[in-house]
Amino acid sequence: MDKYIITIGRQFGSGGRSIGQKIAEKLDIHFYDKELISIAAKESGTDPEIFKDVDEKAANSLLYSLSTGMYGFGSGFSAMGDLPVNDKLYLLQHKIIKEIAEKESCVIVGRCADYVLRENPDCVNIFIYADMAFRKEQSVKKHGIDEARAEHIINKTDKSRANYYSFYSGQKWGMAENYDLCINSSKLSEDKIVDLIIDYIKAR
Amino acid sequence: MDKYIITIGRQFGSGGRSIGQKIAEKLDIHFYDKELISIAAKESGTDPEIFKDVDEKAANSLLYSLSTGMYGFGSGFSAMGDLPVNDKLYLLQHKIIKEIAEKESCVIVGRCADYVLRENPDCVNIFIYADMAFRKEQSVKKHGIDEARAEHIINKTDKSRANYYSFYSGQKWGMAENYDLCINSSKLSEDKIVDLIIDYIKAR
Repeated sequence: MDKYIITIGRQFGSGGRSIGQKIAEKLDIHFYDKELISIAAKESGTDPEIFKDVDEKAANSLLYSLSTGMYGFGSGFSAMGDLPVNDKLYLLQHKIIKEIAEKESCVIVGRCADYVLRENPDCVNIFIYADMAFRKEQSVKKHGIDEARAEHIINKTDKSRANYYSFYSGQKWGMAENYDLCINSSKLSEDKIVDLIIDYIKAR
Repeated sequence: MDKYIITIGRQFGSGGRSIGQKIAEKLDIHFYDKELISIAAKESGTDPEIFKDVDEKAANSLLYSLSTGMYGFGSGFSAMGDLPVNDKLYLLQHKIIKEIAEKESCVIVGRCADYVLRENPDCVNIFIYADMAFRKEQSVKKHGIDEARAEHIINKTDKSRANYYSFYSGQKWGMAENYDLCINSSKLSEDKIVDLIIDYIKAR
């Protein structure tokens, strides 16, 4: 492959983001994760803090959206009408992901990028997951999460990611068949996983 | 890894069996797929044809089992009482898989081997799947299936495998997190997939 858009879906605490960063560094290509929020905020003239709260979360129900004032708020979204802010962020990120994929090789983490780019032949879709014990350990070490609450936060975050993915793609998050390659990151060192993925891309 | 039991779950038409065979040849280890039926038949003194009909199929309902005479038939199963023949085959294969895994490195295809060996640290669990167009083409070419019926047969076989897996393991067939490595076989040549899996095993 001459050009490749590597999308990475990941369970919380699996190290998927870090693996994506290392792949981008080794291949000398751009890395997009929370960067997509900043771009979306800039393009729409919105406070990035508003987007951070709803990033990778499926739209709330109409009633909840109304009660929290998250419905139809900004003039920067005039073209999108009165959609909930989650949907607006999804649509903005959808557009940005498509534009990025047109112009450069890169790594994109989360945000249904595999689904957004499903017709793009340059796409390599990866899913990173891990055993719960490993994810708990990583959550404490890397994210500073209290050990007693780690499993609860992992399950809650993954449930939210699964809902987001299913809501916008109509597919089940974490089903192997939605990706090209899925790797359990608790069975191999991070560096070896990075090498394995790069070897895979070279073999394509 | 010095010893490794490679289990392969596979969608129908994905080439998982053939990939498993090539891995076994390259690593010079035994390959078990339908061979497990012959061993189970021999050990229990049962006609292999009886087992072939229920291989990798979840137990039928009591009523159906009674109506088809598949309930409590053989003297060779005396220790298992009056279980349906599907359950008897599952239990026999379960025992055989555990015995094989104790004594040698090998490749085992299907039959919930990943679940049966879930406590075995020498286990590497792989899932092979592919795009529908590829699987249809392979079904016609390799299995001589009529093109018009290929998709129907693929879906029916996979539904049966998914039921079998879920019935005995309580897990969802094809969910990435049940395996160490999942590969879409329509994106890479069979030989490259074999090499990738062998590289993965060497890296462990």
